[in-house]
Amino acid sequence: MAQNGCEHSERVLTMDTMNPNVKRVEYAVRGPIVQRAVQIERELNMGIKKPFTEVIKANIGDCHAMGQKPITFFRQVLALCSYPDLLEDSKFPEDAKSRARRILQAISQGIEMIRQDVARYIERRDGGITCDPDNIYLSTGASDGIVTMLKLLVSGEGVSRTGVMISIPQYPLYSAALADLGAVQISYYLDEDNCWSLDINELRRALQEAKKHCSPQALCIINPGNPTGQVQSRQCIEDVIRFAAAEKLFLMADEVYQDNVYAEGSKFHSFKKVLFEMGPEYSEKVELASFHSTSKCYMGECGFRGGYMEVINLDPEVKFQLTKLVSVRLCPPVPGQALLDVVVNPPQPDEPSYDTFIKERTDTLATLAEKASMTQEILNQVPGIKCNPVQGAMYTFPREGTSSRYVLLYEASGRKRHLFGSWQMTILPPVEKLKIVLAKIKEFHQHFVEQYS
Amino acid sequence: MAQNGCEHSERVLTMDTMNPNVKRVEYAVRGPIVQRAVQIERELNMGIKKPFTEVIKANIGDCHAMGQKPITFFRQVLALCSYPDLLEDSKFPEDAKSRARRILQAISQGIEMIRQDVARYIERRDGGITCDPDNIYLSTGASDGIVTMLKLLVSGEGVSRTGVMISIPQYPLYSAALADLGAVQISYYLDEDNCWSLDINELRRALQEAKKHCSPQALCIINPGNPTGQVQSRQCIEDVIRFAAAEKLFLMADEVYQDNVYAEGSKFHSFKKVLFEMGPEYSEKVELASFHSTSKCYMGECGFRGGYMEVINLDPEVKFQLTKLVSVRLCPPVPGQALLDVVVNPPQPDEPSYDTFIKERTDTLATLAEKASMTQEILNQVPGIKCNPVQGAMYTFPREGTSSRYVLLYEASGRKRHLFGSWQMTILPPVEKLKIVLAKIKEFHQHFVEQYS
Ligand SMILES: Cc1ncc(COP(=O)(O)O)c(C=O)c1O
Ligand SMILES: Cc1ncc(COP(=O)(O)O)c(C=O)c1O
Repeated sequence: MAQNGCEHSERVLTMDTMNPNVKRVEYAVRGPIVQRAVQIERELNMGIKKPFTEVIKANIGDCHAMGQKPITFFRQVLALCSYPDLLEDSKFPEDAKSRARRILQAISQGIEMIRQDVARYIERRDGGITCDPDNIYLSTGASDGIVTMLKLLVSGEGVSRTGVMISIPQYPLYSAALADLGAVQISYYLDEDNCWSLDINELRRALQEAKKHCSPQALCIINPGNPTGQVQSRQCIEDVIRFAAAEKLFLMADEVYQDNVYAEGSKFHSFKKVLFEMGPEYSEKVELASFHSTSKCYMGECGFRGGYMEVINLDPEVKFQLTKLVSVRLCPPVPGQALLDVVVNPPQPDEPSYDTFIKERTDTLATLAEKASMTQEILNQVPGIKCNPVQGAMYTFPREGTSSRYVLLYEASGRKRHLFGSWQMTILPPVEKLKIVLAKIKEFHQHFVEQYS
Repeated sequence: MAQNGCEHSERVLTMDTMNPNVKRVEYAVRGPIVQRAVQIERELNMGIKKPFTEVIKANIGDCHAMGQKPITFFRQVLALCSYPDLLEDSKFPEDAKSRARRILQAISQGIEMIRQDVARYIERRDGGITCDPDNIYLSTGASDGIVTMLKLLVSGEGVSRTGVMISIPQYPLYSAALADLGAVQISYYLDEDNCWSLDINELRRALQEAKKHCSPQALCIINPGNPTGQVQSRQCIEDVIRFAAAEKLFLMADEVYQDNVYAEGSKFHSFKKVLFEMGPEYSEKVELASFHSTSKCYMGECGFRGGYMEVINLDPEVKFQLTKLVSVRLCPPVPGQALLDVVVNPPQPDEPSYDTFIKERTDTLATLAEKASMTQEILNQVPGIKCNPVQGAMYTFPREGTSSRYVLLYEASGRKRHLFGSWQMTILPPVEKLKIVLAKIKEFHQHFVEQYS
């Protein structure tokens, strides 16, 4: 890259002197395609004519940026917490005010109450299996919890360097964090031919191979899956837990899409619940960290950076170290904590905001379910595109070409396969926009096949 | 530490297997004394009788927790951004509404506008020296920016491992981050006998010594200082810049207390401004990152985790890497970004909120100034305690004992010297509470001296 004007050959911080791990970090979500899209959007705004009139972003999981409406109750409580004079305002419902009073009180006393509310939420979710608030760590989005847990796990050098198993296709936070920490990424491949399910034999294969060059310590699971939209069966989760126990792997369960389940017959099972239902042989032994967030599900509030992690069977001394580590970064953002509290402690049937809340939540999830099945249907109508059912989360990961014929076509076209051989796309754009996106993909694909056949 | 119930000798994550850098992190702000204080507070709340009736926390710089009032305008804008229905509410002033509209618009388009507003703020602050919005990175509080910059700087092994110079006494984020990154901490001591000023000869000494065992790459300055409350003179800043240029050190200027200057004759000079006033020989060469935050000054909004850093003369390729690195963690919390925007773009003289805003800001800073001089005065009245003027920031770092006689007393008492030989304390408690704290210290000190003399 050229430097404007003066020469800086003698800089302190250069590509040669900088932290080499940072260079290894790859992060496609803000990569060249996105930058090009931003540029095109700017050009359109400037009035430059193009063969299209708008850029519809289907790359990131920011629900509100895609037009999904925030839940009214949550935003009312946040406004009340930001500016407590509004507690006198008769336009706010009483239950929003009482939540806000409780949160303001709690914040001035530390975050104990929010952790307790999270624990009660987990207990309700998991059919009564107890949750100790001392096992709850509030975090700056799930990302923060995930990176912190990975950081704790990484040690050793050479063949004893920590290896961490992650699924491919993956959510790029994982590979980026592992590169940044200098840990070894152990890739296991999800089974595209079986609705992107997780295959224990593939876990076994990846682990055996990795043992030759690193020390595998942890297994990361995303369920429901990003970017592949699959929801794991209870059986699969049991198998994973047994595998982790047998192979002595620390389990990390990324469950930020726990409310995003759409497909007939699919159901969300938390790793915690399954672990405890498997009895003390597992529930007293397997180390588990699970992550949740205010960014996804029907909330979609990724701007507030709220989240938590629950740790199970963590060594008490390690737990002390974890507490110390999170303290150094000071607390997660308070608005995110307040939001998390109303998410885990939403309006109850006897409260004035209940009906609106339920309606908004139901509508949001129903719209997502509609878009999930629409996406899958339209894409599968295109000859040569194969798209698994979007069982959950907010994404689809379709593929162009079911046979090697298409691979040859890609090569003939001189384009890089990964740009459009398989690709991730969100189902988040509003229904009308999503239809446009899907129609454009169909058109592009047919044109491409004709041109290069 | 004992484990309740079952034995977990076979855990994956233990003190032996965990990341060794995490163990090295020390963080006193949430350490044993704070934990004891929390416990005592709980006992008092439970009605347990003690020789005192309350716990007054003078350990952390959380202004609002200490009773300082948030600025009305800021909170109004935040409430409006959280719950835009309030834009119809006649109780909110028009300028707060127009700011909120602007921010809501900007957020949906990305953070470009906020970075531009920050750049304009820096230009006004620095008497017109230009600031390029492309050099501004929004961060999750200043902490996040500091840790990110340190992370970029760390590389090498053995004697070529990166060393970073930090002041002692220090703000514990720095030592903690360096330990976590496995970098070498190079301590330079502030001169207690000269109002905690920075002495270039001491920098030189520390650097020469460090060169034997590491590769010094960066120099961190906190101005105004935490925990020591000093404000650097323009001359001192020039000397530091010359030193950094001569020794090829990357400068990190932590300026989160830039509005907190109280002492007659003290004035805040930004490193950026001084650097540019020293001419192109320096301003085109010295690499500088400076940090600011919504947590301190008259804002005191540490719960929102808003902040930014400005980078100067960063290698363009390194800058690209930095952009990538911050993208991995997704964006800083949106409410913090919104807050930062109103902080750098506050009410103007022709706007309805201006008078209240100025009054609140002035009152807050005047109260801090009053507490700064009160603290220094009362402590210096105690024979055997020496307290430098609190020129700026929100802290004092007094010392018990001006002669070795007191050191012997500490030893005779069997207590650890660092617990109370010198100690940091905030000036944040409300005036009445601060008086109680200071009286208690006086009493304790006199009692202690009598008992052990
Ligand atoms: C699987 C998965 N985990 C974690 C995250 C990060 O969530 P947060 O916004 O809570 O940091 C995402 C966000 O897209 C995700 O898809
Ligand atoms: C010198 C200094 N730098 C940085 C910080 C961190 O500030 P923030 O809350 O913006 O992360 C503090 C907070 O006390 C501080 O005193």
